[in-house]
Amino acid sequence: MSANEKGEKVKIIEPRTLKGFRDFLPEMMIPREILIDRVSSVYRSYGFAPIDTPVLEYLEILSGKGSDETDKQLYQFEDNGGRKVGMRFDLTVPFARFSAQHLAELPLPFKRYHLAKVWRGENTQAGRYREFMQCDFDTIGTTSSFSDVETALVINDIMERIDLKTNNSFTRFQIHLNSRKILTGLLEKLDIPDKAVPVLRALDKLGKIGREKVAEEMIAAAGIPSDKANSILDLVLLENSDNESVLNHLEKTLSGNENGLDGVSVLRQILDAASSLGIPKDRFVLDISIARGLDYYTGTIFETFLTDLPKIGSVCSGGRYDNLAGLYTKQTLPGIGASLGMDRLFAALEELGMVEKTSSPVQVLIACFDKNLTNEYLKIGSDLRKIGIGAEIYPEPKKLGIQLKFADRKGFACVLVIGSSEWERKIVQVKNLKTGSQDEVSITDLPDYLKKVL
Amino acid sequence: MSANEKGEKVKIIEPRTLKGFRDFLPEMMIPREILIDRVSSVYRSYGFAPIDTPVLEYLEILSGKGSDETDKQLYQFEDNGGRKVGMRFDLTVPFARFSAQHLAELPLPFKRYHLAKVWRGENTQAGRYREFMQCDFDTIGTTSSFSDVETALVINDIMERIDLKTNNSFTRFQIHLNSRKILTGLLEKLDIPDKAVPVLRALDKLGKIGREKVAEEMIAAAGIPSDKANSILDLVLLENSDNESVLNHLEKTLSGNENGLDGVSVLRQILDAASSLGIPKDRFVLDISIARGLDYYTGTIFETFLTDLPKIGSVCSGGRYDNLAGLYTKQTLPGIGASLGMDRLFAALEELGMVEKTSSPVQVLIACFDKNLTNEYLKIGSDLRKIGIGAEIYPEPKKLGIQLKFADRKGFACVLVIGSSEWERKIVQVKNLKTGSQDEVSITDLPDYLKKVL
Repeated sequence: MSANEKGEKVKIIEPRTLKGFRDFLPEMMIPREILIDRVSSVYRSYGFAPIDTPVLEYLEILSGKGSDETDKQLYQFEDNGGRKVGMRFDLTVPFARFSAQHLAELPLPFKRYHLAKVWRGENTQAGRYREFMQCDFDTIGTTSSFSDVETALVINDIMERIDLKTNNSFTRFQIHLNSRKILTGLLEKLDIPDKAVPVLRALDKLGKIGREKVAEEMIAAAGIPSDKANSILDLVLLENSDNESVLNHLEKTLSGNENGLDGVSVLRQILDAASSLGIPKDRFVLDISIARGLDYYTGTIFETFLTDLPKIGSVCSGGRYDNLAGLYTKQTLPGIGASLGMDRLFAALEELGMVEKTSSPVQVLIACFDKNLTNEYLKIGSDLRKIGIGAEIYPEPKKLGIQLKFADRKGFACVLVIGSSEWERKIVQVKNLKTGSQDEVSITDLPDYLKKVL
Repeated sequence: MSANEKGEKVKIIEPRTLKGFRDFLPEMMIPREILIDRVSSVYRSYGFAPIDTPVLEYLEILSGKGSDETDKQLYQFEDNGGRKVGMRFDLTVPFARFSAQHLAELPLPFKRYHLAKVWRGENTQAGRYREFMQCDFDTIGTTSSFSDVETALVINDIMERIDLKTNNSFTRFQIHLNSRKILTGLLEKLDIPDKAVPVLRALDKLGKIGREKVAEEMIAAAGIPSDKANSILDLVLLENSDNESVLNHLEKTLSGNENGLDGVSVLRQILDAASSLGIPKDRFVLDISIARGLDYYTGTIFETFLTDLPKIGSVCSGGRYDNLAGLYTKQTLPGIGASLGMDRLFAALEELGMVEKTSSPVQVLIACFDKNLTNEYLKIGSDLRKIGIGAEIYPEPKKLGIQLKFADRKGFACVLVIGSSEWERKIVQVKNLKTGSQDEVSITDLPDYLKKVL
């Protein structure tokens, strides 16, 4: 209980966030924004354009579009106008609706990225959140394998830029490649083309139950002869000695099958392009075991793993599909895309020490030593901003010790101290909080000095 | 009706957005992101740090915190766990909750900005949306007038950068200044200090019903003697010949009253600082008629008007308050801030022709002339990106006419055409879509050439 202005007792409402929801304080938000900015820059540099869609959609647009699980997790309600509405649970369904709705306005091929929050009321154990950020990019309206190559290169470019601490090119990751057409082709060659769904369902359990049990499931549940089940498992579990041998092996196994060879040919084009651009040989790995989704993906498939944190799973996944928006339009929209798991990636970067901790967006604090010099402090701040150096000015002439403690806690690099004697001599005392040193710098030399030390 | 893969009839769901909600296509989103980036850069350059809060809050945090109207407009529902929740209708209430909740982690003074969507189920006529973007910045934990000065300068800096077409410093705007303490002081001097609420309520109608009717309301509803009502109206409707005369007049009228003189002194500091930084004299206008909110604001008040579109009202408004988070914590948190009406401002920029129309985030299209040169196109694209020139590559070897039409429709500046004969000679045909001219450029000279023409 607290008292309001009239002296009445006022009940304090406990300030809290919903389970599974988070506030982002500056020390978390500043590096997140840097990551978002870097990722967006890569997308844009390839011609992917930003779009946005509403958080709320008609319920019929969203429900029944993901899995049974996403339906259960959907935040849905009736609005004041009696409409049944829901909060988006991913960015793919809204993009499908968007593409169908604006088809006439979109020059094809259409390349977009969408970086936004989505909501799922899932169980919150183990770092799962009910509000999280997705970051999708897609090319629709073309079946050209060029877009498969480009998608692989965009993933590579993004991943190379995720070190938020050193700004060095990051290399400790691998992009796994597969094509759904390889399995399709093999099933065609084995004369069981209609068994894709139960086979994929069984293969999905490989990590959990192992080869023997998966083979049993294929035989029992899908009615596949034992030798064919083993052929499938042999191919899926193919050891990757090197990409070239895998390609050769696949071409031999699938010889004569158009679908299968087509899938392999696209993978070869990706590897060739990567090699011709000087991307390290071990960056892309052929991995026939990755499947991603039972029905949605139809061609190339991508998953991206951090070498030092393989357990967390793929941080950027995607693939080619035949038809994005069949539920909303008769026009077939083939495409390819991938999604960066922003929150999972960010948690990984923190664990790997790749995030610079600061709660200040600028590195320079101008101390307030003499309130009569306010306009002079403002002028120094304004001049620094003009040359691209952000500066905060402490608002009150508190004890210098308090201001230095504030600067230290927030992670400023330098504090500029200017009293009347300094101002008369047109100099600044610069305290470097990282080294502990102090320099006397003339105001005219300040920009060059700061450019050097920051 | 449409047919799925198995030939079954599938009902097409009509792709549509909810009333009052919008999709943002690239031609709208690209300039919006530029505006957002410029605004955020200004905030950050002054040391305002980004934060974010959940879209959903406990209903008790949100309800009863705005007006009766915002309560009615609130998107609220019960989640799957039976919690009463609501979607935020502004960024101030979540910031108050956030500040109370994280007080121990926030070094004071705390400066934050928050750029995010909010939702209100309002009537949708006249360009009102139910989902729109707010863009708030605040300094809390200090009563220093320095922060009043800084807030004014931040608004000015943002507004100077809103011309998205020419990149010139924008000047066609004015920031109106007032202080709630002026009216408080006058009421104290008139011995009616408890009449602030009905007086403000009456003054709020000045634009609609005029001076006479407002005077009548003050006399009838608030029981204020006619001469005092007229003194109030004389001050509020003071013609602004020039800021200095207004300040002198205010100082005379309020002489001996601490509150009033204090308010005037802060306004004087803002005008002094602006003048010492060389900001044009007519940029800030003293305007005693702006009131903004009955109870919330307690000191300096800001409103910002576009000279060429005064009708649309203030595009950036704010002020000083005594206590941000009294509903959620016993600790008093004084502060000052303002909110940029992103959607209103953007609509105004479009109306004023200050938005560059393009649906491509890059200016260069590399045409696909010969599929065998794919890796060469990729290398040229990659080299351009490394020097900061984004480039899109057309994914298929379609007819050049189709590719040029695509480029034209999307607003690319240049198309690079490279066939096998060009590649052998290590040259590029550059079609400039703005001038219609075509140049033959050697691949080594391409970066310099493009830097010149773009």
